Amino acid sequence: MSADHGTRYEQAGVDYEVLDAAKRIALRAAGTTSQNAARLGATVIDASRGEPAVVVSLGEVHLGFVLECLGTKSMIASKYLEEANVNRFDAIGYDTVAAIVNDCCCVGALPFVVNAYFATGAASFYAGTRHAQLVAGFQRGCDDAGAAWGGGESPTLAGLVDPNEIDLAGSAVGLVPPGSAPILGDRLVHGDEIVFIGSSGLHANGASLVRSVADELADGLATELPSGRTFGDAVLDPSVIYVGLVEALLRESVDVHYLSHITGHGLRKVMRASADLCYRIHTLPEVPEVLAFLVEQAQLSPHEAYGTLNMGVGFAVYVAKGEGDRVVRLAVDAGLSAVVAGQVEDGPREVILEPLGVVFAGEELELRSN
Amino acid sequence: MSADHGTRYEQAGVDYEVLDAAKRIALRAAGTTSQNAARLGATVIDASRGEPAVVVSLGEVHLGFVLECLGTKSMIASKYLEEANVNRFDAIGYDTVAAIVNDCCCVGALPFVVNAYFATGAASFYAGTRHAQLVAGFQRGCDDAGAAWGGGESPTLAGLVDPNEIDLAGSAVGLVPPGSAPILGDRLVHGDEIVFIGSSGLHANGASLVRSVADELADGLATELPSGRTFGDAVLDPSVIYVGLVEALLRESVDVHYLSHITGHGLRKVMRASADLCYRIHTLPEVPEVLAFLVEQAQLSPHEAYGTLNMGVGFAVYVAKGEGDRVVRLAVDAGLSAVVAGQVEDGPREVILEPLGVVFAGEELELRSN
Repeated sequence: MSADHGTRYEQAGVDYEVLDAAKRIALRAAGTTSQNAARLGATVIDASRGEPAVVVSLGEVHLGFVLECLGTKSMIASKYLEEANVNRFDAIGYDTVAAIVNDCCCVGALPFVVNAYFATGAASFYAGTRHAQLVAGFQRGCDDAGAAWGGGESPTLAGLVDPNEIDLAGSAVGLVPPGSAPILGDRLVHGDEIVFIGSSGLHANGASLVRSVADELADGLATELPSGRTFGDAVLDPSVIYVGLVEALLRESVDVHYLSHITGHGLRKVMRASADLCYRIHTLPEVPEVLAFLVEQAQLSPHEAYGTLNMGVGFAVYVAKGEGDRVVRLAVDAGLSAVVAGQVEDGPREVILEPLGVVFAGEELELRSN
Repeated sequence: MSADHGTRYEQAGVDYEVLDAAKRIALRAAGTTSQNAARLGATVIDASRGEPAVVVSLGEVHLGFVLECLGTKSMIASKYLEEANVNRFDAIGYDTVAAIVNDCCCVGALPFVVNAYFATGAASFYAGTRHAQLVAGFQRGCDDAGAAWGGGESPTLAGLVDPNEIDLAGSAVGLVPPGSAPILGDRLVHGDEIVFIGSSGLHANGASLVRSVADELADGLATELPSGRTFGDAVLDPSVIYVGLVEALLRESVDVHYLSHITGHGLRKVMRASADLCYRIHTLPEVPEVLAFLVEQAQLSPHEAYGTLNMGVGFAVYVAKGEGDRVVRLAVDAGLSAVVAGQVEDGPREVILEPLGVVFAGEELELRSN
């Protein structure tokens, strides 16, 4: 059953094994270049390779640098606009920024500038109302992340990108505040507490699964959820931006040992750090309605669901023993939901979701070149 | 005739008027965010908006930040691989880096880190030999630019990107060397000399026109040029990376007033700066064989050709009167061809190509929001 549904997810267009292998080839090549800019006083911190953002030191200044994409979520918004005549491209613009800046702040770098990549397949994309909403959402995301929108690129790639769609990505540079160190996971130790911060729903990952499920529903994206909202409306709730929380953690000198943005690979991302440590989770947050519906419709097992989707966990904060409650308070102050979810233990590297009896073994998440 | 061929170029998929208008909408929104990160000591220098890279000041440190894409040139390489069984994806990887770093160094910022964006439509892209070559070329580009390859993103975007192709882009951060100022065009004055630096051929712009022309040739990309090389082979010559030249100009304290990377819009990019100045060109370099062939086949007028393609000019350096010859010498030392091509004069804003009797009026290049 697990294999069947794994295959189904792959049929929806995402084969992570092949992709991760390709990523490793690129990481290996990139790894040879760390000293290329030493003459300018700039050096890539090799320990940051494989982390959500690369960290470059420029003398005393530590910068986080990330390039991220939204994936295919914009296609859901196009479909929803066509079917329900509701334009949610503001949320898509916001989601794009969230995908970028949440990765950036994981290494302890607060994003200060974001560039956008809007690639369409035909200039006709710009004829409708989508672009204006997209721009407004992107701007609002930058405002909420406390970053300037620097610029970017908006090519038309005829024959390469679908003429009715848009490929969204972007890049950000962040600053590790003076007095703080980059957060790279080397301080993770047995006994650390893990705090899960709530997601708003789908965020950026699982969009191809949503489209596949919607295609099989009689009412598609107009299908009503138990709350009365439609599937399409709920799935397009904008992502949460966690930069403000990270900024508060650094400002309040919380002893943060690691940060993980829970995106593709779902809660397998809890073991993103390279250390041989076990992450024992005793409490899981409530699953957002739209994700519960998606899991039910796609008949995903708990292992598949939690290994693919965020299931209500948008971000994980790892702190020294006894600091978990402070993180929860700071999150609540920032309007987020949060729970002390578990603790770090000595290896082997795996994630144990005790309430579900689900274990993700180390080899289920390999993002590094070695 | 001009209108006809303009239309033909638009039919090849690129409608710059619509795109430039969309760009201006985004630039306007972005322009409201310059102070968002002031609390971190970071501020976008507004005069850099509309320049090839945005400049952000971080106290004493000035950074250039750019996100650029290659466009559809990778599709030519896919076609050439299929038809001639020759893998030129190394050149495509190199081209991608060139597109990014040449923009970055225009503002006087030497790129120290580059992130890659490789978006495919299906994981099967990775099954062949293209990816390994792409990675090798990307790495070589970073090496030649003196920048580290930090990381990036390589998503599979099923339904969004063509399953047999790859959407290539990337981002870079550059440092304005201490003691230098960002180069934003404000020092351009009447009497400045303009030096044109040679291109190797197509570089990143005009790929859709190449494909359109190849489709109409009996032998397609295998068509022989006068030199005996094939059209496909020549068109896939890697771009030139100009970072080393800019680094030499700064190191030798050449009085540089502006730099322009000649890409989309061809020599209209000579008037990229916002100033009301006229750029009078008295000398044009030899046109690379492959571009001469392309222009002849597409029956482009000189106005269209020089307003669309680089026509042998990959980069323009604007220096104080009397400094042009030094630029030529430094370029030749760096293995590049260069010529003192003309001078800057008081307005109106336009480019005059005297040898051809071609004039590009200011309204033919509008990249700013106002």
